[in-house]
Amino acid sequence: MGDASLRAEQRTVVIVGGGFGGLSAAQALARHPVRITVIDRTNHHTFQPLLYQVATTVLSPGQIAAPLRAVLHRHRNVEVVLGEVTGFDLGARRVKMTDVEVGYDYLIVATGARHSYFGHAAWERLAPGLKTIEDALEIRRRVLLVFELAERDAFMRPTHRPAPSDPQREPINFVVVGGGPTGVELAGALADMARRALAKDFRLIDPTRARIFLLEGGPRVLPSFPEDLSRKTEEQLRKLGVEVRTSTFVTGVELDGVRAGDVSFPSSVTLWATGVAASPLGVLLSDKVDRAGRVFVAHDLSLPDHPEVFIIGDLAVLLADDGHPLPGLAAVAMQQGKAAAENICRDVQGRPRVSFRYVNKGTLAAIGRKAAVADFGRGHLSGVIAWAVWLFVHILLLVGFRNRLMVLREWAWAYFTRERSGKLITGSTSLPGWHEGQDIPAGSGQSASIAAPREPSSPSCR
Amino acid sequence: MGDASLRAEQRTVVIVGGGFGGLSAAQALARHPVRITVIDRTNHHTFQPLLYQVATTVLSPGQIAAPLRAVLHRHRNVEVVLGEVTGFDLGARRVKMTDVEVGYDYLIVATGARHSYFGHAAWERLAPGLKTIEDALEIRRRVLLVFELAERDAFMRPTHRPAPSDPQREPINFVVVGGGPTGVELAGALADMARRALAKDFRLIDPTRARIFLLEGGPRVLPSFPEDLSRKTEEQLRKLGVEVRTSTFVTGVELDGVRAGDVSFPSSVTLWATGVAASPLGVLLSDKVDRAGRVFVAHDLSLPDHPEVFIIGDLAVLLADDGHPLPGLAAVAMQQGKAAAENICRDVQGRPRVSFRYVNKGTLAAIGRKAAVADFGRGHLSGVIAWAVWLFVHILLLVGFRNRLMVLREWAWAYFTRERSGKLITGSTSLPGWHEGQDIPAGSGQSASIAAPREPSSPSCR
Repeated sequence: MGDASLRAEQRTVVIVGGGFGGLSAAQALARHPVRITVIDRTNHHTFQPLLYQVATTVLSPGQIAAPLRAVLHRHRNVEVVLGEVTGFDLGARRVKMTDVEVGYDYLIVATGARHSYFGHAAWERLAPGLKTIEDALEIRRRVLLVFELAERDAFMRPTHRPAPSDPQREPINFVVVGGGPTGVELAGALADMARRALAKDFRLIDPTRARIFLLEGGPRVLPSFPEDLSRKTEEQLRKLGVEVRTSTFVTGVELDGVRAGDVSFPSSVTLWATGVAASPLGVLLSDKVDRAGRVFVAHDLSLPDHPEVFIIGDLAVLLADDGHPLPGLAAVAMQQGKAAAENICRDVQGRPRVSFRYVNKGTLAAIGRKAAVADFGRGHLSGVIAWAVWLFVHILLLVGFRNRLMVLREWAWAYFTRERSGKLITGSTSLPGWHEGQDIPAGSGQSASIAAPREPSSPSCR
Repeated sequence: MGDASLRAEQRTVVIVGGGFGGLSAAQALARHPVRITVIDRTNHHTFQPLLYQVATTVLSPGQIAAPLRAVLHRHRNVEVVLGEVTGFDLGARRVKMTDVEVGYDYLIVATGARHSYFGHAAWERLAPGLKTIEDALEIRRRVLLVFELAERDAFMRPTHRPAPSDPQREPINFVVVGGGPTGVELAGALADMARRALAKDFRLIDPTRARIFLLEGGPRVLPSFPEDLSRKTEEQLRKLGVEVRTSTFVTGVELDGVRAGDVSFPSSVTLWATGVAASPLGVLLSDKVDRAGRVFVAHDLSLPDHPEVFIIGDLAVLLADDGHPLPGLAAVAMQQGKAAAENICRDVQGRPRVSFRYVNKGTLAAIGRKAAVADFGRGHLSGVIAWAVWLFVHILLLVGFRNRLMVLREWAWAYFTRERSGKLITGSTSLPGWHEGQDIPAGSGQSASIAAPREPSSPSCR
């Protein structure tokens, strides 16, 4: 069969990162006679566009994350390795991990980006971003916990007889920093959660009175969308009860509030959805990086001077025809993953490489549970039709047939009922690393009388 | 209406703990004209009998935990408070929490028990028990991680060409300590996971070769069951590949193994499923406690000298007619919750209290995914019929109509396919607090060649 010699000839491709870019590269390459190793520091691919739904109790982690092994297991030339890449030896063509190195013929780096705090590292603890399952669970924990603590606080007050307008009761405030798609989706989902999903869970507090602020530094939300859709988005958010503040640039984040110049916003939970800080691996690969640490790549997506190294997704900067860098979207990363795979394959076959061109099939952002905006270049959609498109596209893109069914079911359930599978606080019910070791804050009163029931029921034992 | 005076007359019942006992007491009392406060340090009721399925990737946390607010929200005389009880003032009838106190007319304490490590506190970190959602996620993380690390280790070896019997490859070993129902169910589910669910996920290691030891100090597994069922259970476990060792009393737990006298068992992950240590609140309520810290209660389940205080579930000791204490089962706790509610109700109505009698409707233990044992007193069942009964009973008892459907579906899926929604490692992929700050252990080799694919596929780019 000459099998051994065939194998010996095969090139090895190492892919670092199992996000949209890395996974699509692995899947595209898997059909070809190359040996592929996917290295990721988690064991799963995360469907990031739906993370905000885990953070706001609609979905559970297992529904938007798929183990990389499960996704790739039918491709026998793909090996998945759990590990953290610490550096590269581009000359010797080796990837460095803790204690060990892995050699490659081709390298694809797709380790993405996190949020940038504009040099204020201390803000991250107070205002977490939303990039991983762990982030989403931490946000969910904080969001649910502030309602629980407010209820407990009200319960412990000596006179807590319900008086909905009681001014002494501290309201719950959420501040979302950043009016891009993630910020818009988070703010809309928080409003939906407070106004609907939690509305009847509490006895003494009224979750529907929670305030949700969405702060955007620029003049309009969704700055990457056409202006008419930004306007529609703001309208829609206002209908949901989100207080949108544009041209509001955050200058300070504290435990109980956010400052923007002279204006202060009270905040029980602050969420961060702005800024881009590329994976720290970027600067280890090249000194040609932009301010966010993203690496400038050639038109074939390779690193200048290192045609065997490809950088794709949020870690790469490639200027589009209009001179602007391509946006940090799943669609871009996926198309780049396929393109890098194609160019590797062409190399192997001795054919010339092709330049990457992003085909913009449209961008979407959901606003609460009934509206969305969609930008298809010439065509713009908003409202419930855009929402139907959003739903369809996200279900299609979700990895794994089974997750699709589960998520559809969960959405239907969340749409028609107030029930949600994700209203679980896991981890600590105190607030370490956030309220710094403070235990569940207690009410101001020393001791308390007990809540009166609203209606006594049948007065017999059986 | 005289509403205010009616309310003023109402007794307040504080229930500490939202497990099987506390929840059943709350639900039974909710139909009566009393004011009820349920205090728990988590926001959810956990269906503990299925925790082992979360630990072994079959189910997700949201499927076996239900937010207490959601479960109780239709009872308007029930208030749920998230908080940690730190003590009691039995004279003044007050429950102490951090900084605050809550008064009561009746108190029901149902804070359960954890595992006991027989005075070896250091073993807990090395061999976690299984009582909470967090425990289950930590066990799942460790179990999945050892397979990942073994694969990575094999990958990093200079010569890792598959040789299934390669003696230098370190096998994966699980040790489950304790042959009661939890230990049996965990060991069976681990075997099922290694032999089926993970069988094809890896390229270089063979998960089906993992060894699973079940260590029991007494002469037979399931000591609380009749002898014939213990024998059948051992047979069934052996068929699944579990190595059962009875009369094996653990004398040492280390990072990589467990000692039992002169015998050592190698262990990659050790799980603890034995011993009872009652909630520390027990000794704060009474000095009449047994060695496990469980409180001796009167036949009406109240604390001697404090008829207004009831202790139920795993925190209570009540001798059955045969002189033995009642077992720590969900069924006992639930019946006791109802009985305590009944006695409070009778007090309010000026009727005499009744003594608690446990009605044993049978006990069950599942062994893997196709067998179980069931003890109905006179009738014993084993094998697939017992398993059908187990399935039926657990679905019936699961709190929440919706969770029932979800779990049924998940079981059907796990039964017929290898896919599981729970194969997710969340939290750290290093091993802090377990392998003490050690990062992902690397292979012994310095660098590695890349795994050979088994079959190259189509050799063209498109």
